[in-house]
Amino acid sequence: MKPEKISEAVVRRLPVYLRYLSELNSTDIQTVSSQELGRKLDLNPAQIRKDLAYFGDFGRKGVGYNVSYLIEKIRQILQLDQPRNVALVGTGNLGRALCNYNMKENVKIVAVFDSDPSKIGMTMNRLTVQPMSELQETVKEKDISIGIITVPAGEAQKVSDLFVSAGIRGILNFAPTVLRTPDGVRIHHTDFTADLLSLAYYMDNEDENVSDNDQG
Amino acid sequence: MKPEKISEAVVRRLPVYLRYLSELNSTDIQTVSSQELGRKLDLNPAQIRKDLAYFGDFGRKGVGYNVSYLIEKIRQILQLDQPRNVALVGTGNLGRALCNYNMKENVKIVAVFDSDPSKIGMTMNRLTVQPMSELQETVKEKDISIGIITVPAGEAQKVSDLFVSAGIRGILNFAPTVLRTPDGVRIHHTDFTADLLSLAYYMDNEDENVSDNDQG
Repeated sequence: MKPEKISEAVVRRLPVYLRYLSELNSTDIQTVSSQELGRKLDLNPAQIRKDLAYFGDFGRKGVGYNVSYLIEKIRQILQLDQPRNVALVGTGNLGRALCNYNMKENVKIVAVFDSDPSKIGMTMNRLTVQPMSELQETVKEKDISIGIITVPAGEAQKVSDLFVSAGIRGILNFAPTVLRTPDGVRIHHTDFTADLLSLAYYMDNEDENVSDNDQG
Repeated sequence: MKPEKISEAVVRRLPVYLRYLSELNSTDIQTVSSQELGRKLDLNPAQIRKDLAYFGDFGRKGVGYNVSYLIEKIRQILQLDQPRNVALVGTGNLGRALCNYNMKENVKIVAVFDSDPSKIGMTMNRLTVQPMSELQETVKEKDISIGIITVPAGEAQKVSDLFVSAGIRGILNFAPTVLRTPDGVRIHHTDFTADLLSLAYYMDNEDENVSDNDQG
């Protein structure tokens, strides 16, 4: 609601809150404090209160947050009440893993593409793999707004360009390469190796980094 | 080198710099400015200079960074000169995708486990799938320090506990659930749905969020 720009880090944490709140909700837990959320999600409770305060005054002091109300609010903020259709390009192991992933929210993979002729016509989680030549038309037909790229690094830019020219404005890239997109197109890179390599940093630095400015 | 605690966000960006610098290096480009890095990686050049300044004074004004020197430094910081062995539990599509992933750095998956008896003995990228009962011993034998979890949400905590009791101190969790680990064990959650759902936020807010405090 506020005109203020919300940082990416905050927006990125909202789905994490949402998932855990949904877990709580399914076990009939009705309120949760920022302390409990913080402990469970390994986040600073003050950070959590600040994140949620961006969007309105949800919590009550000494009581905590009403779980189902907070779920509803976060879903509103992320605009998950409206369905969001997704196209995926690349039917390797990762593409298949994503297709089979049980998305609980309204964001669904509704079309799958591959450039390899031998993959066309295969079925992946009830979707038939289509040739790249059908991408543009299918994006319009199925009102697809998000594209996922799970092709090898060398092919990713071409796929990204096709997505953009088909009118897609949000791309989730799993290919291990940096892609160029025009202004107005949002691209998120999901990078296993970065996660893994940054863990390596902490393996030997953990002790010396448990410093006294932990409140920062 | 500095006793200062480096933020996770910075550590998380170093492998991203490293990858792009390696791409540059392979095309014989010898220097790069923070402006060029920023344009390519969609990051603020001032942010990049600040990130790299944590670790020492690498760049020279008006010249930029020496690519191969910066690669060497980042690899040192992330301690990638020493090999880091990784165990993976879960041989579904995602586990297979990770096994087949060409890790250019010294961080390698050297053992794969599954609890499903029908998977034991299968070969994945030259590794033979082992039963969970062999995890503890293999971790010691192969000097494994990092564990990857790609099992369904309901089994993930059990796997995490096994990793911890085997002495693993770094875990990369792909299961869509929050895991508890004791102090001293570092856990990173990689969360497709969070990436995807946070994209949804930007789909309709992009225009109104291109605000004038873009320098912030």
